[in-house]
Amino acid sequence: MWDSKLQRHSELSLARQIYQILCNQMTEGLLKSGDALSSTRELAKSLGVSRNTVYEAYEMLSAEGYTVTRPGAPTRVADGLCLENTMPVMSKNKKPLQAFSRYIADFRTGKPDLRRFPRQTWLQLEHKAAEELPAEKWGYTGPEGLAVLRDEIAAWLLRSRGIIVNPQDIFITAGATQALYVLAELLSGEGQEILVEDPCHRGMLQVLTQKNFKICPVPVDEQGMQTGKLESSSASAVYVTPSHQFPLGGILPAGRRTELIRFARAKDIYIIEDDYDSEFRYIGSPVAPLWAMDRQRVIYVGTFSKILFPALRIGYCILPRQLHRRWRYLRTHTDVQNPPFEQAVLARYLSTRRLDRHIQQMRRLYGQRRQILLAQMTEIFGQTWSVWGDAAGLHLALAFPGKCFDQQFLRGCQAAGVLVTPAEYHSITKGLHMDKLILGYGHLEPAEINKGLRLLHKVFKRVFS
Amino acid sequence: MWDSKLQRHSELSLARQIYQILCNQMTEGLLKSGDALSSTRELAKSLGVSRNTVYEAYEMLSAEGYTVTRPGAPTRVADGLCLENTMPVMSKNKKPLQAFSRYIADFRTGKPDLRRFPRQTWLQLEHKAAEELPAEKWGYTGPEGLAVLRDEIAAWLLRSRGIIVNPQDIFITAGATQALYVLAELLSGEGQEILVEDPCHRGMLQVLTQKNFKICPVPVDEQGMQTGKLESSSASAVYVTPSHQFPLGGILPAGRRTELIRFARAKDIYIIEDDYDSEFRYIGSPVAPLWAMDRQRVIYVGTFSKILFPALRIGYCILPRQLHRRWRYLRTHTDVQNPPFEQAVLARYLSTRRLDRHIQQMRRLYGQRRQILLAQMTEIFGQTWSVWGDAAGLHLALAFPGKCFDQQFLRGCQAAGVLVTPAEYHSITKGLHMDKLILGYGHLEPAEINKGLRLLHKVFKRVFS
Repeated sequence: MWDSKLQRHSELSLARQIYQILCNQMTEGLLKSGDALSSTRELAKSLGVSRNTVYEAYEMLSAEGYTVTRPGAPTRVADGLCLENTMPVMSKNKKPLQAFSRYIADFRTGKPDLRRFPRQTWLQLEHKAAEELPAEKWGYTGPEGLAVLRDEIAAWLLRSRGIIVNPQDIFITAGATQALYVLAELLSGEGQEILVEDPCHRGMLQVLTQKNFKICPVPVDEQGMQTGKLESSSASAVYVTPSHQFPLGGILPAGRRTELIRFARAKDIYIIEDDYDSEFRYIGSPVAPLWAMDRQRVIYVGTFSKILFPALRIGYCILPRQLHRRWRYLRTHTDVQNPPFEQAVLARYLSTRRLDRHIQQMRRLYGQRRQILLAQMTEIFGQTWSVWGDAAGLHLALAFPGKCFDQQFLRGCQAAGVLVTPAEYHSITKGLHMDKLILGYGHLEPAEINKGLRLLHKVFKRVFS
Repeated sequence: MWDSKLQRHSELSLARQIYQILCNQMTEGLLKSGDALSSTRELAKSLGVSRNTVYEAYEMLSAEGYTVTRPGAPTRVADGLCLENTMPVMSKNKKPLQAFSRYIADFRTGKPDLRRFPRQTWLQLEHKAAEELPAEKWGYTGPEGLAVLRDEIAAWLLRSRGIIVNPQDIFITAGATQALYVLAELLSGEGQEILVEDPCHRGMLQVLTQKNFKICPVPVDEQGMQTGKLESSSASAVYVTPSHQFPLGGILPAGRRTELIRFARAKDIYIIEDDYDSEFRYIGSPVAPLWAMDRQRVIYVGTFSKILFPALRIGYCILPRQLHRRWRYLRTHTDVQNPPFEQAVLARYLSTRRLDRHIQQMRRLYGQRRQILLAQMTEIFGQTWSVWGDAAGLHLALAFPGKCFDQQFLRGCQAAGVLVTPAEYHSITKGLHMDKLILGYGHLEPAEINKGLRLLHKVFKRVFS
């Protein structure tokens, strides 16, 4: 029994192997309470190992309470060790989980072009930033984030968006999802409701429902949330994407903004403003955030996932003072803080204005791709469609009057290797946006856009004729 | 009114400043619905700026719906923009929040010695690892963590702890706090209870109570949780630190381990095993995890915060297969994933066995410091105390029979600049461990230990005489 189990060239020391076999024998009941173990000399001899090896294994057993030793008496098995059915599960199944299917045409949303990211520059900055990070910053640095990054974000918001933010009100997050998650925890209570745009990003909705919020949909049109239809007796917050409605693309006009703020004031509730990609606006200047209209009531959520790259896992939110203490507490007990390295690099990327230049370059690039997408749409699909929303962000909402993008259409897409999102995927009230498609294009080269649209057109012909 | 507000050398463009002033005038009601704005020519002249600048500001206002334009008519203020009491809060208060008080003697727990961490090596590896990370890994890489890191952790657990783990069962976390947080979410239900050791790490308790768990304390003695006292009709989990009880330091003996597992099987509930610092054991081999005794029922939580450094924000848990899907869902909707860079470096640190050597070095160092602390205790405090628990970890639990470490004692410490934790701080049932102190020493040089203990002794004399 013994010999076959000991492996001479294992990662595992022989003592450890002996220890494990004896442990198993005890918990499986093969060695019973009070049984004496062989002497170290005997066992060493029968196993062909040194006596020291056995001694070491016995020491482990004794230290962990598997055995009882008394001077002059043999080592005996301790009481109450037998467990029924303890078969260790040693699945050797190393097959990786099925990876994302590879699509021939991949119009997924929210994906920046990572091929165009200046990785070398970033890595050089990272090295410098990490090197200069003082030793105490390798410990705990606080749930609010590095001060230098909060300062730089405030300066950047001033020069790029024209808003004056106190760095003390900026809290670094591990991205927008976490911001919403912690905010949901912060604003949640028993059986409360949250008002959201309909349609609304499905992942964000899942965060809210996971936190037991009852979702109250407010319909969306080409200008974003229809604030005239806001009503709720017990909502504790509104979640809104005023700078570029997701997914339909509208920019909330000033009149609706004031209406929304008036509503929130009357109900005495907070507004969560998710500004996920408004840095990329191709006509005119960036839109001012809703936050600027009421800093006590609007919580601003920003992210660098789209501007830089998702793996960075850095976003931020701007919180009114009365929420600071509770935020710190919740973040500390959720995941404590962000790692400081990425924060330090980002601070440097901001202070050297590289971020400003990168956004400018990418805005130009994405704007061109948007134009190409639109031109190709006309060429391939003729005049059967229209654009919804504003010229901003990394995706387009297209309406095809008379069409219905249902399960049959999706199966057709899948068969052809096309990934495209019907607006209905993000709808809460079903059936209102059956004729709209959402196409992410930021990550696609012109040739990929062309190929993708031609493939999509083939699916159209197959499904709709 | 205008002139004084425009700042010529601001970060903010003149157009943006004009836009903001007009916005404010509209939401404050100084410009009312239907009011005509000055022509661009007039306003440019009165402000002494170019007409283009004003035109740009007007474009922004129009694009965001603040104004309405009709061909041939002056630009007019849109309807419904007036908001009462919209005074932007522009606090210039940049004073940093009060930093941690500086203690003369800082015996806080859970702090590795960051001064001894080989930062240069780490940074070199980081640079290499980040450089080799393929572009797609700068996007989303999945809630379970990088495959290469999961493989390396499995290999390390085999060679250091003698346990065979399927890498597919290892899920990377942003540290132990997050692991417990997500597990609490995963195991929680209406009005459920969790069994915990008493005393138990206060921060971890706060995570559990935040998740609405009712805490059921199980008393702890020198050998850890008193499993004979386990009882609960509706507990959904047990949270336990069997390798080194926090804070009292006991190692759960084999008999209690089987008793605990038998209990969990009978109740059909999970055991969360928090193994926060057992890598540092100064006598004998590392203890086998409870997890090895029942892989279907024990969830193992490990962290690199103590072994490497807290700012790394990487830990892991080992989950039975039936929990994988739910864990992925919850992590995705909590904070999506860890950043990949630290994961890639850590994988390399493991594959090159640098981690093994680092742990070995630090174990020697911490072991020496523990010896020094004990020797100095005898020299300074005589025989008035005894050690609790095992020779492991980064802190010591000391019992001083007859003493009572109450608020008065703590005030004495604070006045003297001594940070030390009474065991009662982590107690749920109060009054049982009034005579015990917890001293973290891993981060202290011998001279600091000596100075700290002398100071502590002075506090003793002042308070207890």
